[in-house]
Amino acid sequence: MSDTPKTPLLDQIARPADLKRLSDRQLDQLAAELRAETVSAVSQTGGHLGAGLGVVELTVALHAVFDAPRDKIIWDVSHQCYPHKILTERRDRIRTLRQKDGLSGFTKRSESPYDPFGAAHSSTSISAALGFAVARDLGGNVPEGLGDAIAVIGDGAMSAGMAYEAMNNAGHLKKRLIVILNDNEMSIAPPVGAMSSYLSRLYAEEPFQDLKAAAKGAVSLLPEPFREGARRAKDMLKGMTFGGTLFEQLGFSYLGPIDGHDMDQLLPVLRTVKARATGPILIHVLTKKGKGYGPAEAARDKGHATAKFNVITGEQKKTPSNAPSYTRVFADSLLQEAAEDDKICAVTAAMPDGTGLNLFAERYPSRCFDVGIAEQHGVTFCAGLAAGGIKPFCTMYSTFLQRGYDQVVHDVAIQRLPVRFAIDRAGLVGADGATHAGAFDISFLSNLPGFVVMAAADEAELKHMVATAAAYDEGPIAFRFPRGDGTGVEMPERGQPLEIGKGRIIAKGARVALLSFGTRLSEVEKAAEALSARGIKPTIADARFAKPLDHALILDLANTHEALITIEEGAIGGFGSHVAQLLAEKGVFDSGLKYRSMVLPDIFIDQASPEDMYAVAGMNADHIEAKVLDVLGVATIGEKRA
Amino acid sequence: MSDTPKTPLLDQIARPADLKRLSDRQLDQLAAELRAETVSAVSQTGGHLGAGLGVVELTVALHAVFDAPRDKIIWDVSHQCYPHKILTERRDRIRTLRQKDGLSGFTKRSESPYDPFGAAHSSTSISAALGFAVARDLGGNVPEGLGDAIAVIGDGAMSAGMAYEAMNNAGHLKKRLIVILNDNEMSIAPPVGAMSSYLSRLYAEEPFQDLKAAAKGAVSLLPEPFREGARRAKDMLKGMTFGGTLFEQLGFSYLGPIDGHDMDQLLPVLRTVKARATGPILIHVLTKKGKGYGPAEAARDKGHATAKFNVITGEQKKTPSNAPSYTRVFADSLLQEAAEDDKICAVTAAMPDGTGLNLFAERYPSRCFDVGIAEQHGVTFCAGLAAGGIKPFCTMYSTFLQRGYDQVVHDVAIQRLPVRFAIDRAGLVGADGATHAGAFDISFLSNLPGFVVMAAADEAELKHMVATAAAYDEGPIAFRFPRGDGTGVEMPERGQPLEIGKGRIIAKGARVALLSFGTRLSEVEKAAEALSARGIKPTIADARFAKPLDHALILDLANTHEALITIEEGAIGGFGSHVAQLLAEKGVFDSGLKYRSMVLPDIFIDQASPEDMYAVAGMNADHIEAKVLDVLGVATIGEKRA
Repeated sequence: MSDTPKTPLLDQIARPADLKRLSDRQLDQLAAELRAETVSAVSQTGGHLGAGLGVVELTVALHAVFDAPRDKIIWDVSHQCYPHKILTERRDRIRTLRQKDGLSGFTKRSESPYDPFGAAHSSTSISAALGFAVARDLGGNVPEGLGDAIAVIGDGAMSAGMAYEAMNNAGHLKKRLIVILNDNEMSIAPPVGAMSSYLSRLYAEEPFQDLKAAAKGAVSLLPEPFREGARRAKDMLKGMTFGGTLFEQLGFSYLGPIDGHDMDQLLPVLRTVKARATGPILIHVLTKKGKGYGPAEAARDKGHATAKFNVITGEQKKTPSNAPSYTRVFADSLLQEAAEDDKICAVTAAMPDGTGLNLFAERYPSRCFDVGIAEQHGVTFCAGLAAGGIKPFCTMYSTFLQRGYDQVVHDVAIQRLPVRFAIDRAGLVGADGATHAGAFDISFLSNLPGFVVMAAADEAELKHMVATAAAYDEGPIAFRFPRGDGTGVEMPERGQPLEIGKGRIIAKGARVALLSFGTRLSEVEKAAEALSARGIKPTIADARFAKPLDHALILDLANTHEALITIEEGAIGGFGSHVAQLLAEKGVFDSGLKYRSMVLPDIFIDQASPEDMYAVAGMNADHIEAKVLDVLGVATIGEKRA
Repeated sequence: MSDTPKTPLLDQIARPADLKRLSDRQLDQLAAELRAETVSAVSQTGGHLGAGLGVVELTVALHAVFDAPRDKIIWDVSHQCYPHKILTERRDRIRTLRQKDGLSGFTKRSESPYDPFGAAHSSTSISAALGFAVARDLGGNVPEGLGDAIAVIGDGAMSAGMAYEAMNNAGHLKKRLIVILNDNEMSIAPPVGAMSSYLSRLYAEEPFQDLKAAAKGAVSLLPEPFREGARRAKDMLKGMTFGGTLFEQLGFSYLGPIDGHDMDQLLPVLRTVKARATGPILIHVLTKKGKGYGPAEAARDKGHATAKFNVITGEQKKTPSNAPSYTRVFADSLLQEAAEDDKICAVTAAMPDGTGLNLFAERYPSRCFDVGIAEQHGVTFCAGLAAGGIKPFCTMYSTFLQRGYDQVVHDVAIQRLPVRFAIDRAGLVGADGATHAGAFDISFLSNLPGFVVMAAADEAELKHMVATAAAYDEGPIAFRFPRGDGTGVEMPERGQPLEIGKGRIIAKGARVALLSFGTRLSEVEKAAEALSARGIKPTIADARFAKPLDHALILDLANTHEALITIEEGAIGGFGSHVAQLLAEKGVFDSGLKYRSMVLPDIFIDQASPEDMYAVAGMNADHIEAKVLDVLGVATIGEKRA
């Protein structure tokens, strides 16, 4: 099998309008070619495979029936958008997916008019689509025009309260709006929650295979206001809509479930909806994640996210590492703590694999809680557990914790409840790009009274911080750590609780002190090495805590050095700002101090390798070195700098 | 009618356990006394009246049947908790409600063991109750013990996604958990959304008055697993539960609706639930907000929040003001802008009255959207509107905007969509206390790339900022303003768009520059007056923008003064931190500058008047004066300072 599959029909498609020329049978063929092209592209780039494969037919059908970019097709999360990108004038760049300067792995407004609303976090599509629908009816003016608003949302994403809020509001406003529930019984992880079992019940009594026989008469399956066709499928209609009430009670017309891999069901249903919909309508489509590519279908995660792979064998090309990943170190450390303290439990929001909590769930199933995509509830659930004398580790990616911010403030911080926040994916994350950057947590947690905020400098530090959090009962405590592998440092047998609010000196030097918070420490050490060659030996310190700050350490560094530079993997307002406030209040600036704070720059940084992203951010070793030279006034004119 | 009503039964109640001695008829009488006492107390303190009056019988019934504090009664929002406080050992302080050093207007863990989980923001109770239920089953250990977990949540609060997330998770976990849906068809504002019409339909066909006849047989109304009693009310059961499916589909047993003012329905239902519940159960209770107090029942808002009032007439004692409220200025200014630009629309999340958008809704009903208690959806809905060429003003209190933080980052900021954020209740808010403080928005918005962040120094500035936001199409823009009345400054006919990123000099002085962001400006001016008497004439500037900063203004102030002090009504990480970062990067600190940043202190400040709260915060005129004297090294030893 060649890397580029034969795609005679797809080769004729320059833009979605070209699909209008194809017969239904040709659209079927086009879907097969689109699937092959998707597999081929992702085999070269890595990325999200299973989700896209599950919506190949739906993508073709949507573009065949609707008129993008006038009609707004909004992919929820949008990691399933690769087939959509191939059909919408981006096929020539599809093998640059998730690479530096390449296509984003998500929809992105700045990338294409066919992406009317970007995404990456889940469950935003219905709100956005409702916005477009209302804008249309209010006479909003955009270059592409405003036609139908269509949200395509997975069953996992339906567990988020935001989706419910949007359904509730849409049902009230009664605007013409199309929501396609892409039900594959599998978001990132197998979905949890009552909504999930509800959806399972919906088709348990009418497996969609049986529906194929009725495909020709699909139009007749439509409920009000479409029930004009032959009524011969009355009984089946009854069966199919028996569970539609939940959505109908929220004000939606419910339609389905239909087989999302069967063009003979998809096309007539979408055409009828396009022709006749008035208010909000929900089309329930059943799909299989990873559909049509054996290795993905066979995988436990249905090929959710993959490295580059061999198309024929499915084998992924992974770079071996000598160091364990931070995620793994966290998971192992938490298991160690949990073995000695049966009050420790773990809570995550649909990220059991990504956070390593799958290991915890295996060992302690009754003490591990995956609440679904529901960060708001997850945080307050932890607050309730803590109020009940349990020690919850609220384990989320930094970027997703933003979803639970009010709950962190209102339910955890104000009540000073000892919830432990394990914050994975802190800092820049690589191929997932700006939407997944963990840029703001230092800032938005450190200004909450009573919070303890830590960042691990390496994987051994992480282990100690897990132990610190386990031992700390006075109030909320958070520790952050990045995506990816550790530094290979020697690991302690057991984590030892750190003294709250105490940093550490890594190396004593002179003139300039480099105060690191988090894993930039290794870059600081590299910079120090380069500086030593120039005769400048900086003092290096690891703050460990952004809150409470180590006043003694920081004031000592300030008083015994000409310059003090902080560095952190976060935006302004965090660690460096707290240090500046301390220095200002103590009058250290009154008589002069060369103080600088290296933080993420004031831009959203596009996807690339984390190292490349930190290069854009100006936070790698050479930037630190340059900062020191600049601050100390050492001439570097004419020198080449990366 | 005396200020203290006759309450012979209530006088015998020292704690909830004393209710166990009373007969059902006595409990009825107790409820009447409790209602009178609640009215009397709130007439003296002001506060939330209608919500408490609506749950008097429910409060008595809950405490008569369950065993607090072992059983955890969690009041959602908790502004309905005054009768609960009276029954739970706080009657002696009930006339200090919402006063400085008095009882909080909300439940509060630190106030009483009978408040197992504090609240003030809506829709957290089910998550918290589920936390307690799981903690109980995991062997959690708390001094009061862990019995039943009972959430009491209003119908308005059910529009929040968080409540749905919690129901969804509870339905999945199947723990014994009791949710009481207090359905009064009225949260702060008349509730909106499909859920609301769903609930209305639930009892439209069976008005609860008819149920009274069946009161004696209430037990027989119970669905599985309680359906053991007489089955004679079979038809009625069918009628009563016809709409229960939505909750049942989420995994709850549904029970109701029952009349929440009828002890003969409440008591047997709660007793049966206590005796027999296994999994999660939802009890649907119908109540009337303001019940039993004429003036409240007659009011449009059912006595939601009131000033002190005359018990007999209901007349509120309001202090007249010479200046319009900021909220009113915002609302009027927005109406002016909307009259000239039909693309302007307004979105709020269940705060139409509090934000003044009720005026907008009257004038432009088709351009005003109250999405319900649903900030997450509200923000992304605005993003969709903006992407569709409409100009949405997303109008929320600072503290509630925290609920939509991820949406602000992910849907608005990253996509650089021109959503206008009108942020009311910025800074400390008075009687609502710490949970309602608008303390964090400067910080959590100003570090988002591409955001414009303004704060109004007075009501005329606010008018200009509304015009600025209306005119600005480049990306997201926010302006904040406090609760309460303006300064009485002369108002311009029309708002004029400000130059983005430009501050203004208010007064030129020497030695020290006071750089204000927001309405502390009037305190700064007072301080400057006092300082002038000492021969120190400070320069005063109004920054207007926390982002983008006015570099030229700030650097000029720094270079021409011995000291520079910033002041803002927000926590660390905001305006002052951005100024410090600028000064550091520009090398201003290298040679020395007496820089200080006055921000909210690192504590949550309890309710009092805003002025008293700012006194605790150390941010009134005398504190500013003291700060200047301290920084300039002017001796103040022996002087008295407030």
